Amino acid sequence: MPASAKHASEIHNDPGPENVAALFDSPLNTGTGRGLSLQKQLLARLKHAILEGRLPAGARLPASRTLAEDLAVSRNTVSIVYDQLAAEGFIVPHRLGTRVAQLSLDPRVAEEAARQSARRRSAEDAVVAKTTSADVAHQTPEPHVGDSPAAAPSASRRVQRLPATSHAARANESPLPFVPGVPSLTRFPASTWRRTLERVMREAQPRHYHYGDPLGEPALREAIAEHLRISRGVRCDASQVVITEGAHEALILCVRLLTDPGDTVWMEDPGYRGAKAAFHASDVRLQAMRVDDEGIVIPPGAWAASTPRLVYVTPSHQYPLGSVLSASRRLDLIAQARHYGTWILEDDYDSEFRHQGEPIAAMQGMVPDAPVVYVGTFSKTMFPALRLGFLILPTQLAAQTRDALDELLRGGHRFEQLALADFIRSGQFARHLGRMRRLYRERQTALREALAEHFDPAYAVIGERCGLHLTVRLDPAFHDKTIVATALREGMGPRALSSFALDPQPADNGLVIGYGDTDAARIPSLIKRLAAIVATQGKVGR
Amino acid sequence: MPASAKHASEIHNDPGPENVAALFDSPLNTGTGRGLSLQKQLLARLKHAILEGRLPAGARLPASRTLAEDLAVSRNTVSIVYDQLAAEGFIVPHRLGTRVAQLSLDPRVAEEAARQSARRRSAEDAVVAKTTSADVAHQTPEPHVGDSPAAAPSASRRVQRLPATSHAARANESPLPFVPGVPSLTRFPASTWRRTLERVMREAQPRHYHYGDPLGEPALREAIAEHLRISRGVRCDASQVVITEGAHEALILCVRLLTDPGDTVWMEDPGYRGAKAAFHASDVRLQAMRVDDEGIVIPPGAWAASTPRLVYVTPSHQYPLGSVLSASRRLDLIAQARHYGTWILEDDYDSEFRHQGEPIAAMQGMVPDAPVVYVGTFSKTMFPALRLGFLILPTQLAAQTRDALDELLRGGHRFEQLALADFIRSGQFARHLGRMRRLYRERQTALREALAEHFDPAYAVIGERCGLHLTVRLDPAFHDKTIVATALREGMGPRALSSFALDPQPADNGLVIGYGDTDAARIPSLIKRLAAIVATQGKVGR
Repeated sequence: MPASAKHASEIHNDPGPENVAALFDSPLNTGTGRGLSLQKQLLARLKHAILEGRLPAGARLPASRTLAEDLAVSRNTVSIVYDQLAAEGFIVPHRLGTRVAQLSLDPRVAEEAARQSARRRSAEDAVVAKTTSADVAHQTPEPHVGDSPAAAPSASRRVQRLPATSHAARANESPLPFVPGVPSLTRFPASTWRRTLERVMREAQPRHYHYGDPLGEPALREAIAEHLRISRGVRCDASQVVITEGAHEALILCVRLLTDPGDTVWMEDPGYRGAKAAFHASDVRLQAMRVDDEGIVIPPGAWAASTPRLVYVTPSHQYPLGSVLSASRRLDLIAQARHYGTWILEDDYDSEFRHQGEPIAAMQGMVPDAPVVYVGTFSKTMFPALRLGFLILPTQLAAQTRDALDELLRGGHRFEQLALADFIRSGQFARHLGRMRRLYRERQTALREALAEHFDPAYAVIGERCGLHLTVRLDPAFHDKTIVATALREGMGPRALSSFALDPQPADNGLVIGYGDTDAARIPSLIKRLAAIVATQGKVGR
Repeated sequence: MPASAKHASEIHNDPGPENVAALFDSPLNTGTGRGLSLQKQLLARLKHAILEGRLPAGARLPASRTLAEDLAVSRNTVSIVYDQLAAEGFIVPHRLGTRVAQLSLDPRVAEEAARQSARRRSAEDAVVAKTTSADVAHQTPEPHVGDSPAAAPSASRRVQRLPATSHAARANESPLPFVPGVPSLTRFPASTWRRTLERVMREAQPRHYHYGDPLGEPALREAIAEHLRISRGVRCDASQVVITEGAHEALILCVRLLTDPGDTVWMEDPGYRGAKAAFHASDVRLQAMRVDDEGIVIPPGAWAASTPRLVYVTPSHQYPLGSVLSASRRLDLIAQARHYGTWILEDDYDSEFRHQGEPIAAMQGMVPDAPVVYVGTFSKTMFPALRLGFLILPTQLAAQTRDALDELLRGGHRFEQLALADFIRSGQFARHLGRMRRLYRERQTALREALAEHFDPAYAVIGERCGLHLTVRLDPAFHDKTIVATALREGMGPRALSSFALDPQPADNGLVIGYGDTDAARIPSLIKRLAAIVATQGKVGR
């Protein structure tokens, strides 16, 4: 077709510009104050009209002057809006006038939009709506039902592996008495800590607002290395220290650095549920190893038959049963790990608080070059919301993984790290630990005495020599989960031993009772109530 | 053998207790002050003697009274140490006297220990060593060489996938000029922020030191939801908001929640290296999709042939090329994702700073129930060290993943979250954004003018309409990585465009220049120098 004929034909066929103003059910809100500017309102309305198909693809838009007059706004406002729509690709320039772009719109969206428009027009007389962007959003069609896409979008299979655990406390609730793993929140030296942090922030330079070293503030890494050498016998220097978001991120990082999908990981059973979750969130094959009063038990032949890439242990105070991994088993574990190329993850979560005897030295330091990654946390020595943990990597592993760590970690939280380094170096941390040791020893004593008075002596109390919790084994006839649920309703937060088991045995039945954040004075009456709850399950309490 | 005969025989065969004191090369340090207590010294020495084989398995220990006399310490000290060694399993009670336990010791360790003992005895006259636990640790044998275990412990294959990236700045260094992605550190209202945080901490209760809601402080989740609804057109309420450690953790979380190993993930190429690292650290199959000036380009047939579980896009301001994903492509992407059950990850990293036109509304809000997970960060609107990001989960996904999120997240950093909520609600955040928009617009203008003056006009400048960086494409004859390395030596930190490419093409060659943290006044002279560096690569600069 000759150009002129085409042109004429287009003019002839061109239906003229859309009456855009008529698409709007209500006038733009011209009031001053908190509402959106006219520009923002118009932009939103036009976008939604296009997305809902009310301004269909190919439709010609009126000249900016025309629309401005129709809507009683400035021509400049309309021009700016048109420019924006063009920049985003909603409208395209055309010789005969700007047109709505060809967009993939869901046909159901258009149907629903038509229905909504009908409803709106009938309500038009009743209400003059103040339009905000949020309102416009809510006017768009409701979700369309009945469509079955080829595959409904879903979460990963991994999500289904992660079991729901009941949480006794959320957000702004105070932790209940007897929740294990919680240090004293009321006795934490909050003002000293606050003043330390304030001083760090006042002295900070602009560069301290930047990402920082992905492995953490050098001052803190030094302070941690020195503290561990002296108090835990860990062999390390600052270059081996990696600061993490609590022990939780430390474990996740170990999995990424040390395992490939399908690798076998051994962990204690019963064992720390946070570790179980971290392993289940990865794609390793988790294998449960029983625990006795000397710690983890590895059956003969297991090393050869089911060689692990990683063995996760809590050797100073098994969580939750409290056993100390004997020297013999430690050295066996190290020897076998060396032979099979296995890494041992030593989680030393509450070793600062030993109530009987000296703190047990870390496994990591027993022999030179042990294949042990040492994991620690300040959640119990400082406070949980600080979210500050660390790993000690063996030197050759630190070298091998340096680049990967730079990619996986992002630094940050520098003021808290500098404040903690200060807190440690000034001796505040050591003094705080001393006060807490005395406090926890006192609370633990009150707890053991109350248990001796109110609980059946047949129920063995274990793991009481260290930390912030102990465990009371119960007769299998009493379902620990039922007892715990009742206790929760009565405002107490012990945990069921069976919930710590990967592969529950009848003997994994009991109460894991924390005392870190429970006043000694309250303990006798609380334990009396707890004993009553146990008794109502069947057997008569003492 | 009759019991009495056995007994007699044992007495006859018993070589008597070890002369433990003779095993020690130096006396215990009895001085007062900072050294370890006698008890700790003795415990450490005996442990090491046992671990090194100098006190062999089965050896009988002297009575506590005897050893106390030999060492000139109290009997109580020795008793306590013996109790500790027994508790840890180093020694075992025996009818005829306590004995060293049977432990798996590496024979090489014993050999080395013997050699070291010989060396020490010859040095004995020269020095009387002050012994601390650290010293004792260093006296233990050096790592044994020549042993080849069945498999040398190594890092994961994943570690090898994570490429090294050069970092212009570490820890305490100030970021260099032109580093992309860094907001202004000097103009951040540090004292206002500090006072906000101080007030939050002063008003905090003990319960605020606890873990808190794993999804983040409700006050902050509310503030974020409101801000996003109003400023980005995101459809959400507080229950869909998840607070994360920066956008980095948000991406990792999406991978865990939404993908299984082996799933395909599409990302823009060139694209954000942090996302690339997050995906490489997982076990997904990463597939590169090219980008043009309308955003990500998905070839016909790709959806069916290589259906992705996840598509990662930066639609408001493609990183690093700056394209805006057109409305047409956005709706196509949404339609196809719906059909194939794919999730779209929308990373909206710097959309608050648009220099031309209105901010582009989020893809997430274009249609109801879009299969989009919206990811955001405060690293650029506040400061990087804050490490605060978030996800907006579609409602049904939020419900499906609630339990998994409780297991994967740990809360914490509550004061900072409460302070940020306050900062947002009080309007401080909005005022700060306004000031920063003006600042970045001014710096971007200075940069474009300097580029126009000093760089060859053939080098296209792109992505300048938004954010904290722009990109200058260079002729493929100029190797951008070489230019960047030279610039770094001269104290400037732009990045090489080719380093953002997953599957580098010749066109992926250029400079990604940040201006967020570079004074406008410095820009002309710095760009002149940068142009000179480019020129020395071959072509003559303008």
